[in-house]
Amino acid sequence: MVTGKSIKFTYTKKDVILYNLGLGAKRTDLSLVFEDSPSFEVLPSFGVITYNDGSLSQRLAPLLPNFSYKRLLHGEQYLEIRKFPIPVSGALVSYPAGIELIDKGKAAVVVTAFRTVDASTGEDIFYNEQTVFVRGSGGFGGASKGRDRGPATAANQPPPRAPDASIIEKTSEDQAAIYRLSGDYNPLHIDPETARAGGFDRPILHGLCVFGIAAKHVYSTYGPFRNIKVRFAGITIPGQTLKTEMWKAGATVIFQTTVVETGKLAIAAAAVELIGEPARL
Amino acid sequence: MVTGKSIKFTYTKKDVILYNLGLGAKRTDLSLVFEDSPSFEVLPSFGVITYNDGSLSQRLAPLLPNFSYKRLLHGEQYLEIRKFPIPVSGALVSYPAGIELIDKGKAAVVVTAFRTVDASTGEDIFYNEQTVFVRGSGGFGGASKGRDRGPATAANQPPPRAPDASIIEKTSEDQAAIYRLSGDYNPLHIDPETARAGGFDRPILHGLCVFGIAAKHVYSTYGPFRNIKVRFAGITIPGQTLKTEMWKAGATVIFQTTVVETGKLAIAAAAVELIGEPARL
Repeated sequence: MVTGKSIKFTYTKKDVILYNLGLGAKRTDLSLVFEDSPSFEVLPSFGVITYNDGSLSQRLAPLLPNFSYKRLLHGEQYLEIRKFPIPVSGALVSYPAGIELIDKGKAAVVVTAFRTVDASTGEDIFYNEQTVFVRGSGGFGGASKGRDRGPATAANQPPPRAPDASIIEKTSEDQAAIYRLSGDYNPLHIDPETARAGGFDRPILHGLCVFGIAAKHVYSTYGPFRNIKVRFAGITIPGQTLKTEMWKAGATVIFQTTVVETGKLAIAAAAVELIGEPARL
Repeated sequence: MVTGKSIKFTYTKKDVILYNLGLGAKRTDLSLVFEDSPSFEVLPSFGVITYNDGSLSQRLAPLLPNFSYKRLLHGEQYLEIRKFPIPVSGALVSYPAGIELIDKGKAAVVVTAFRTVDASTGEDIFYNEQTVFVRGSGGFGGASKGRDRGPATAANQPPPRAPDASIIEKTSEDQAAIYRLSGDYNPLHIDPETARAGGFDRPILHGLCVFGIAAKHVYSTYGPFRNIKVRFAGITIPGQTLKTEMWKAGATVIFQTTVVETGKLAIAAAAVELIGEPARL
């Protein structure tokens, strides 16, 4: 286990609105865009942006052979929300809570965990596990199989019936241009030249933006959840339409999100555990 | 002449992008939305947001009889850009440079001037004069006629010929929701209830947002200008289409901006003086 230094994150209601707009909040979603709305809130996926100081590549480079951030893919994301309601402003600090390297032969899988707490009180707010794949960085003789934290995605296969609910939302052409102001300035998401160098026709939407939009769909349908896990299955171009299909069983909602224009999955094998109902575990 | 305390304003490239997006910049406008673009820049109307600390009502209340911010209308705006290119990040400080009260009988007209400088070097960056009308606050016996600073709007009547250039741009339904994050959180622009109380069917777009969009149209057509003056002639609802018509004569470009859906003027009797050509004065 390797640990790193803590990451500070301070945010205001303005940052909350900017994040919500980055996930497609509309002017009529007053609880998401008007700070004086009695129900003003931050969308629950906000937890994933609180520990990103852009140091992932820097942390991985010394640990993996042949590392390049250009061969890094975000594979899975697990988020736990440990404080309800989520504060709409504050000062947080995130502590690396473990990093696990898994040798898959040709690729390396790296699971990094972060615990995010209130900077003043130390109270738990979020817990994240981020799984990335690094092509070409395997063969280092690490563990060949790691523990899969959080609800296993393998268990999150949709049942063989029509979804219980679905939401379709067209993203904006400018979705990535807005979303990146919440802290992920990777030029892959705005610069056509960088996108082409990465093998894409045009800049792609942030995986965590699609994650947030899908989480918004589940949240607006079923209410607050205590955790969420997703597998990133494919890319989305800003302007494309996302369809989230949901299947509920007790406190669990399994969901997946498809790019309507291509019919391909963007997010697969995903699930949340709702609060207000008994947890399934 | 009444003066007030100085106003600090610190901004980063993120704030610049957010401001540009608030004026309808698109993902393909790389110089406006991508901080690493070689031609990254802030739209020239940025100068008008650097001195707004929300204290206008507070400053006017003791000076005018029967004052209410609900009867305050933004009448005219004059901006001088005193530093080229405009810095894309920095720390500025604005000094009130005079306030003039004009008694129009039923209404008061108040012209407030601000000089904005680099906080470290003291170098001039912007100079603004903001003219507001306050209905019901006249009759205090002040000057009946004030000096009209900047190029007089009366001189900025379009000539009787077809425009030399025009730009049509549909605003986004969410334009005000984004624009307000640049610092003007007046609920009139986001909250339907406040809008109705103000006599509007729905939240209206910030006058200074329309000003910025019109200024963008002139800038993208004719290049940098040393100053700009506009008269606010009517309201715009987010989602409506703006048409800016321009007439060039030497270094002067006279322009006006119409709401296409209603045919009514949003900005009238407006002009810029271009740099790179001899000033007309």
